[in-house]
Amino acid sequence: MAKKFTTRAEDYSKWYNEVVSRADLAENSEVRGCMVIKPYGYAIWEKMKEVLDAKFKETGHSNAYFPIFIPKSLFEAEEKNAEGFAKECAVVTHHRLINDPDNKGKLIVDPKAKLEEELIVRPTSEAIIWSTYRKWIQSYRDLPILINQWANVMRWEMRTRIFLRTAEFLWQEGHTAHATKSEAIEESARMNQVYADFAEEYMAMPVVQGLKSESERFAGAEETYCIEAMMQDGKALQAGTSHFLAQNFAKAFDVKFTDKEGKQDYVWATSWGVSTRLMGALIMTHSDDEGLVLPPALAPIQVVAIPIYKTEEELSEISKHFNELGEKFKEKGISFKFDDDDNRRPGWKFSEYESKGVPVRIVMGPRDLESGKVEIARRDNKTKEVIDFSDTLTYVESLLENIQTNLFDKAKAFRTSNTQEVDSYEDFKVKLKAEGGFFLAHWDGTSETEEKIKKETKATIRCIPLEQKTEIGKCMVTGKESKARVIFAKSY
Amino acid sequence: MAKKFTTRAEDYSKWYNEVVSRADLAENSEVRGCMVIKPYGYAIWEKMKEVLDAKFKETGHSNAYFPIFIPKSLFEAEEKNAEGFAKECAVVTHHRLINDPDNKGKLIVDPKAKLEEELIVRPTSEAIIWSTYRKWIQSYRDLPILINQWANVMRWEMRTRIFLRTAEFLWQEGHTAHATKSEAIEESARMNQVYADFAEEYMAMPVVQGLKSESERFAGAEETYCIEAMMQDGKALQAGTSHFLAQNFAKAFDVKFTDKEGKQDYVWATSWGVSTRLMGALIMTHSDDEGLVLPPALAPIQVVAIPIYKTEEELSEISKHFNELGEKFKEKGISFKFDDDDNRRPGWKFSEYESKGVPVRIVMGPRDLESGKVEIARRDNKTKEVIDFSDTLTYVESLLENIQTNLFDKAKAFRTSNTQEVDSYEDFKVKLKAEGGFFLAHWDGTSETEEKIKKETKATIRCIPLEQKTEIGKCMVTGKESKARVIFAKSY
Repeated sequence: MAKKFTTRAEDYSKWYNEVVSRADLAENSEVRGCMVIKPYGYAIWEKMKEVLDAKFKETGHSNAYFPIFIPKSLFEAEEKNAEGFAKECAVVTHHRLINDPDNKGKLIVDPKAKLEEELIVRPTSEAIIWSTYRKWIQSYRDLPILINQWANVMRWEMRTRIFLRTAEFLWQEGHTAHATKSEAIEESARMNQVYADFAEEYMAMPVVQGLKSESERFAGAEETYCIEAMMQDGKALQAGTSHFLAQNFAKAFDVKFTDKEGKQDYVWATSWGVSTRLMGALIMTHSDDEGLVLPPALAPIQVVAIPIYKTEEELSEISKHFNELGEKFKEKGISFKFDDDDNRRPGWKFSEYESKGVPVRIVMGPRDLESGKVEIARRDNKTKEVIDFSDTLTYVESLLENIQTNLFDKAKAFRTSNTQEVDSYEDFKVKLKAEGGFFLAHWDGTSETEEKIKKETKATIRCIPLEQKTEIGKCMVTGKESKARVIFAKSY
Repeated sequence: MAKKFTTRAEDYSKWYNEVVSRADLAENSEVRGCMVIKPYGYAIWEKMKEVLDAKFKETGHSNAYFPIFIPKSLFEAEEKNAEGFAKECAVVTHHRLINDPDNKGKLIVDPKAKLEEELIVRPTSEAIIWSTYRKWIQSYRDLPILINQWANVMRWEMRTRIFLRTAEFLWQEGHTAHATKSEAIEESARMNQVYADFAEEYMAMPVVQGLKSESERFAGAEETYCIEAMMQDGKALQAGTSHFLAQNFAKAFDVKFTDKEGKQDYVWATSWGVSTRLMGALIMTHSDDEGLVLPPALAPIQVVAIPIYKTEEELSEISKHFNELGEKFKEKGISFKFDDDDNRRPGWKFSEYESKGVPVRIVMGPRDLESGKVEIARRDNKTKEVIDFSDTLTYVESLLENIQTNLFDKAKAFRTSNTQEVDSYEDFKVKLKAEGGFFLAHWDGTSETEEKIKKETKATIRCIPLEQKTEIGKCMVTGKESKARVIFAKSY
């Protein structure tokens, strides 16, 4: 009777959609390219937000909120940025609807309510924020400004996929203002490090920190730091970016400050963001053919308990045990759900929580009651163990840590075994097609070569890794000198 | 040298704007009617969110996220709701900008990127949510659905005021679906009670719980519960609403369920919301002519410590004391700031934290060091006391509770002394003009009478209070029978 679900090997993309849908994370809405994030999916996003928000505050940032609309004249002020986003802007042109005179009960846009200036729904907020910072900054005493915003943004993407690329998405965007170039560069690097720590420690997702090549940079940035992760199909996913914006926005919006010596200069800027795309990265890093797999640090339910019983008495006895256990978990901050729903069979529940990626499952039946035992199953490697009920708390505590570490190690081992150095372009092309993954190759540093490779192979430079051995080599395409290897891969 | 600020008596509206600006809470943006919420203002909103979010979860709700855009055809489906919001809708009509051929570096809307169907920026989300619920609900087993969303919404208001009435604002909107009418009514009442508890316990703002008259109801609701608060100018402010939507949205979006007996029926709905308007209510309830006054439960900084010193040694000794104290506060969950900024004088700091409404100020100078004393000043009633430094923690702990209670009591006493019963319309008109405040009067229950009073006096029915003595009387205008008094007042 069990429905057969698509495996990764059969159709990776279909498998992803099924994992999302079976775990009840999100679905497409009736608005083109926009998703509905369902309660279980949103609960994971809330956990991510909570951890990230604390990290931003620890590093001195405060939250604030800026308007969702950007008047066109502000939007176009920083030309590169405007050019980068112009093609995918939702534009508000009117501010009223009226009854359709020809169609009772229907509404039409009121032509008399046309705006004098169009408003762009923010694809990113540099423009509105820097036009505001102009009012806030006069002197070095007003600096640094370290602000973050949690918000929705809109980019009219033509091809969308839940979490990975949607027209509307949720994100945070940090926007900081500094008196010196070096301070701004430090800030960009620091926040990229925050992202890397979050990805590795909480998402259990190993990432490479690096710099983007010029053509892959954020529109308006002078340098873009990023974290890149490898998905199970060998493709790269850009999981977060942190931009050193130099004085580009300060110049576009005329934001100057007086330094300690009384001299005027433009302000230095950074911006950095991660989005609900991280949900896609999380799903694709750990999930298996049975459904979602979640690292304990981000699981809304870390432990689920399922009773097996025939009689009311049995259920009542098992409930007593699990409710007591639940109190202990609560004290330890472990999120626990005891599912005693009488309308569902244990088998249905097993499959349900497996699909939802709950890290640990505890089962107790009548025989366990007698022997004082429980069965504990872990979602990550599907092993089970029977232990004394009295040991459950300590056992589960260390098991959760163990699962967290195991997921990271497994993902890292996968990445290692799918990362290779290549020195010839021919070799690269063959292996990219046959094996996929990350390729460390020498590149001559030009956009022309990068473009040629992209056109011929669909692989792009994911980043120039921050940490690597110095190695003089020759560009795999042109043979020109190169000082370090960069990562090529196909990407999301 | 101290700049003179506007008092409440001089110009209440100007006073409000100055309090907002001096406390650095928010400012108008370059987008018509939209505000920028600055870090200190946002920190208060974050505290509100945190408390409310926990209360929603305690009452069984989960968060989710729905698209910001509503296709016009969905928007117009529930006619009353559509009619109620049509006049103030921001409408997206295009999805791309292109270079202006006549004006280098400028952008214009691409006429080729006109949308087939216009998208409305959500003024509220019933339409998009109920069109989604249709897919989620088949049987009574799928009910209830108890979802909340934290989001930005847009209502194109013509006259805006920071926090009180802005085009874009932040809010939460609960949207629940139920199998029975009584369950939905219970839910609306329950959430209104949650709002009332939050207002009174955290905002220290007394509220009247009541029902709206038909003409003041939410467009599309069959009953609207509300909490109404009195501001210091005697005007009413609607601080939260909770709507029983009956089957209106279920009918508009064809959302039916099969009950236990196998019969089909439309689903019953509620929605309920509070917004950044609460910030305006908070400010106007407690603040005085010196600036913002915050209840400790929502103050981002509950205690500020200011050193008075001449020498480095003095500062170092005072810092030692305050840093130790800070550790103790941290353990107790009391938010504490030690302001040792050497660039600012104590007098500047006193005035700064007064403007920002920090509930408790602790000052230590060289003589206090010798005598082991500190001076503790409270923001609410501006009294000071000198106590032994060693008693600070316990003293401040109880002081914070004391301030919280005092602010509530004071606001409640103000409301009581500005609430009166009136029985004649003439009397009402005279007293409304001369004294303002809340008027408990009999009303015949018709929209005509309500409209006449509104037109002639600008006062509206704020609510029909849930709790009041049964009292048969005569409508103050028409003399017709009335079963209970309602509250008339001018309002925000």
